[in-house]
Amino acid sequence: MRVLGIDPGLTRCGLGIIDAGSGRSVTLVDVSVARTDLDLPIAERLGQIHDAVDALFDAFRPDAVALERVFAQHNVRTVMGTAQVSGVVMVQARTRGVPVSLYTPSEVKAAVTGQGRAAKAQVAFMVAKVLGLAEPPQPADAADALAIAIAHAWRSGSSVPGGAAATPAQRRWAEAERASRRRG
Amino acid sequence: MRVLGIDPGLTRCGLGIIDAGSGRSVTLVDVSVARTDLDLPIAERLGQIHDAVDALFDAFRPDAVALERVFAQHNVRTVMGTAQVSGVVMVQARTRGVPVSLYTPSEVKAAVTGQGRAAKAQVAFMVAKVLGLAEPPQPADAADALAIAIAHAWRSGSSVPGGAAATPAQRRWAEAERASRRRG
Repeated sequence: MRVLGIDPGLTRCGLGIIDAGSGRSVTLVDVSVARTDLDLPIAERLGQIHDAVDALFDAFRPDAVALERVFAQHNVRTVMGTAQVSGVVMVQARTRGVPVSLYTPSEVKAAVTGQGRAAKAQVAFMVAKVLGLAEPPQPADAADALAIAIAHAWRSGSSVPGGAAATPAQRRWAEAERASRRRG
Repeated sequence: MRVLGIDPGLTRCGLGIIDAGSGRSVTLVDVSVARTDLDLPIAERLGQIHDAVDALFDAFRPDAVALERVFAQHNVRTVMGTAQVSGVVMVQARTRGVPVSLYTPSEVKAAVTGQGRAAKAQVAFMVAKVLGLAEPPQPADAADALAIAIAHAWRSGSSVPGGAAATPAQRRWAEAERASRRRG
């Protein structure tokens, strides 16, 4: 299963594509950040992100899109742009018949690090580790997009963490994830 | 000039189309409200609104899109959906090469009623009056969409209120509009 993870944003939109294999194996396919100029009209900025995402759909044909769920608790100015970008990419995925899943930041952190309140650097560290990268992806939006894609791959049944086939380490990881989810 | 005015919303999205002629003459072309079911996934709800707007572009070929500018000061849950819808329709307009203009609620009220803090009922009353309708359009989202379209037609130079050719009444109206804008 190929997953396009998106960390939506108007100034920087993280776009990470992974392939999910058996167990928890995931491999990096592509990662980029779509950037738009603050001075452009919003319709043009949204259009440029739309075009960047469209190019990824054409080039990599993802089977699923995973997106950070937008909350209003952050900076209100930023959140408006984030919501607009998320709306645009959800409709793009639907137009192409690709299912969209939404994850909260704490769900993503819990899935990738076992801890729903993990620091950003810890998420980036784990993303690099599970994808076998020498360094955490830069900028943070790129790492976040990959983390969202990994969270989707591991949550959507391409592996069975904690199941009969899991190693002791995987079971502990799965237990930590569940505990983290309970803590919310 | 044909203007598609949009009052963006996820549960009800007002869609009003007018033709703007010489002076302040405006005529109703079409008005509708796209509704989506609260129980559907957000991607599907946004997609349905996208499809409704696409059908209007195909059927009526507007020259301009006017949209309510989204603010974060309202109910935060509602605002997220509103921002997502606005992002989707801005990209649709851009894809079709149709310019998008954004107006704050007080700009729309000032343009249509001469008063930036006019009540919703007063806006709907004036919309009916200038379009020659027997009754204010229902629901409020429909009237608001038409008000946004009218505000755009009157602001974007299809008429010259307050200019040399204006009647005394039009000049007073224009002065009231400017005063209202100054008051914000």
